[in-house]
Amino acid sequence: MALPIVKNTIKEMFTNHLTSFEKLKSFKIADIGCGSGPNTLLFMSEIIDTFYTLSNQNNNQSPEISILLNDLYKNDFNNIFNALPLFYEQLKEKYGHEFSQRCFISVVASSFYERLLPSKSLHFVHSSSSLHWLSQVPENLDNKGHIYMAKDCLPIVFDAYKNQFNKDFYSFLNKRSQEILPKGKMILTLLGRSIPEPSSNDGCCLWELLAQSLLDMVSQGLVKKEDVDSFNLPFYTPYCDEVKEIVMKENSFDLDKIEVYKCNWDPNDEDDYNSIFNKKKSGENIAKRIRAVSESMLVTHFGELPLDMVFKIFAERKKLVGALDHHRRLQVKSAAALATGQADGSAQGSAHAKDEPKY
Amino acid sequence: MALPIVKNTIKEMFTNHLTSFEKLKSFKIADIGCGSGPNTLLFMSEIIDTFYTLSNQNNNQSPEISILLNDLYKNDFNNIFNALPLFYEQLKEKYGHEFSQRCFISVVASSFYERLLPSKSLHFVHSSSSLHWLSQVPENLDNKGHIYMAKDCLPIVFDAYKNQFNKDFYSFLNKRSQEILPKGKMILTLLGRSIPEPSSNDGCCLWELLAQSLLDMVSQGLVKKEDVDSFNLPFYTPYCDEVKEIVMKENSFDLDKIEVYKCNWDPNDEDDYNSIFNKKKSGENIAKRIRAVSESMLVTHFGELPLDMVFKIFAERKKLVGALDHHRRLQVKSAAALATGQADGSAQGSAHAKDEPKY
Repeated sequence: MALPIVKNTIKEMFTNHLTSFEKLKSFKIADIGCGSGPNTLLFMSEIIDTFYTLSNQNNNQSPEISILLNDLYKNDFNNIFNALPLFYEQLKEKYGHEFSQRCFISVVASSFYERLLPSKSLHFVHSSSSLHWLSQVPENLDNKGHIYMAKDCLPIVFDAYKNQFNKDFYSFLNKRSQEILPKGKMILTLLGRSIPEPSSNDGCCLWELLAQSLLDMVSQGLVKKEDVDSFNLPFYTPYCDEVKEIVMKENSFDLDKIEVYKCNWDPNDEDDYNSIFNKKKSGENIAKRIRAVSESMLVTHFGELPLDMVFKIFAERKKLVGALDHHRRLQVKSAAALATGQADGSAQGSAHAKDEPKY
Repeated sequence: MALPIVKNTIKEMFTNHLTSFEKLKSFKIADIGCGSGPNTLLFMSEIIDTFYTLSNQNNNQSPEISILLNDLYKNDFNNIFNALPLFYEQLKEKYGHEFSQRCFISVVASSFYERLLPSKSLHFVHSSSSLHWLSQVPENLDNKGHIYMAKDCLPIVFDAYKNQFNKDFYSFLNKRSQEILPKGKMILTLLGRSIPEPSSNDGCCLWELLAQSLLDMVSQGLVKKEDVDSFNLPFYTPYCDEVKEIVMKENSFDLDKIEVYKCNWDPNDEDDYNSIFNKKKSGENIAKRIRAVSESMLVTHFGELPLDMVFKIFAERKKLVGALDHHRRLQVKSAAALATGQADGSAQGSAHAKDEPKY
């Protein structure tokens, strides 16, 4: 959903004469938290396509395009590298040898809460579905029987998660502000809440289902209670205003726009929620997605956990919640905050929303 | 052996006022054909250490250091990435948080015979033990019974290899000349021959031993003759003057220095060559090293080849050659050409040797 906005923003950077397309020698863009799947390549294709279109409108002149992919050390970058020969082959076929030779791809493997690149080396920063992952679980978190914020958690748990997000997102903005060039732009997409209350279903319900599934495993003697008690997710979905406050406090970026839109954990689950078949199918689809994002953390913490069983229980629990008529709100729980920031290249720049937020 | 020269050359770039250490914001260095083992990390450590020393001599001011690692798509970059957290931890311990935060590592996975980076984006290029690997086996090579140049090859085989190296090395220089900044420097180390004659033992003897080992496997019915006939190595060890000629012909770099020094395929094999134990041991050590550099190519071409047996035969053959009093020259066969080039940032610059070559 963010890609058309990214493409338009890049086009506007040139049409608004923030920089001259013909005179710019090299455009540097970072994809922060890029992952290692088809979305990584899709992002690169779309960016390159944008520049090809711009090039056609500018006497076939184009800056060189340098795409920098970033994710954690453990990301499977080899998977991306193995896809690159075919990727370059397709670029060549589509845009010709000369244009494709002007596209450069590099990788930085490190936490995006740290500095990644030399100062003032980026024109554009993009991050999709990454910034809701915290740098760590909040320290000294006492959250027995849960693995994330849940309705009946102590207020201290909500505060701890919120503070960790504040600290991490502030750090992200601060490090990027050092790396981005004056007039550079950022588009960040992350999971968020559509309502302020952190204990809402919108904030934490799916992870609570996973906690309950793990506790079911405890009841069956398959998992130790203390292992569930000591497991918490480094995850936080902020409310839109929280994001705005941190951008203003950190004070390096002007906030052009912030939007909240709905997305669905189950991409196939669009209509006919009431059929029993769809409730079952939806439970399974969501179990798959939750497993995809949590599997490596579960394995690291629990060791040899029978994951198939955990997520079978999860799918079953999800189906039951659906029957209790919670499913519509659950399916759309992952509202995302979209922030478009403009760096003024100095930590002294004022941070103010240029447009009214849209909901 | 090249590392002290790399370090001194970087120091000289600043002491000779090619650029101001205090004013330079970011120093960008590429390690071309970096591999994925401990040498990759060693290279980075030594470069960073050089800058730390320079920083101490310059009121603790230092440019940011951007190290760009390059190798082919199939290089195991994940192995490097997994070593980075500890690497950064050690940097922090040794040089403090502030200095270590100024060191950036990124990766470009692509053939170094193609463009890797945006124009004029590098101050320094280093490549060690990579440029003797060609971009491909010379086309239409008719070289039955051998896998590389050998004493009794047809002259056309020697010419084909030489031409491929000429083309590849020219291309390497040309692409790097576009990426390197004016007054940038390159230090390249590659395997070479100490004598002009390509059919000398110095040029091809170890690979011919591998060819013979494979033919032994053919005799035993374990490998197909046509598979050996169609297998050739994309490898060439140039004579020093050949390297000089290409640098002059390509005409982007001034050649500061070219050196040939001896190195040994068996690092442990330094004395007492005459004991039978050492001949056996040396054969095994060299078999290990030859296997390390050729294994993936052999597996790709021959499929499921009993490699243990191939290299047992190889070690045995190597021992016999040793007994024929060829072993001293064989052990030092891998002479290396060291070229230090200075880019003048334009393809019009004259290329001339500033120092007499040393042998």
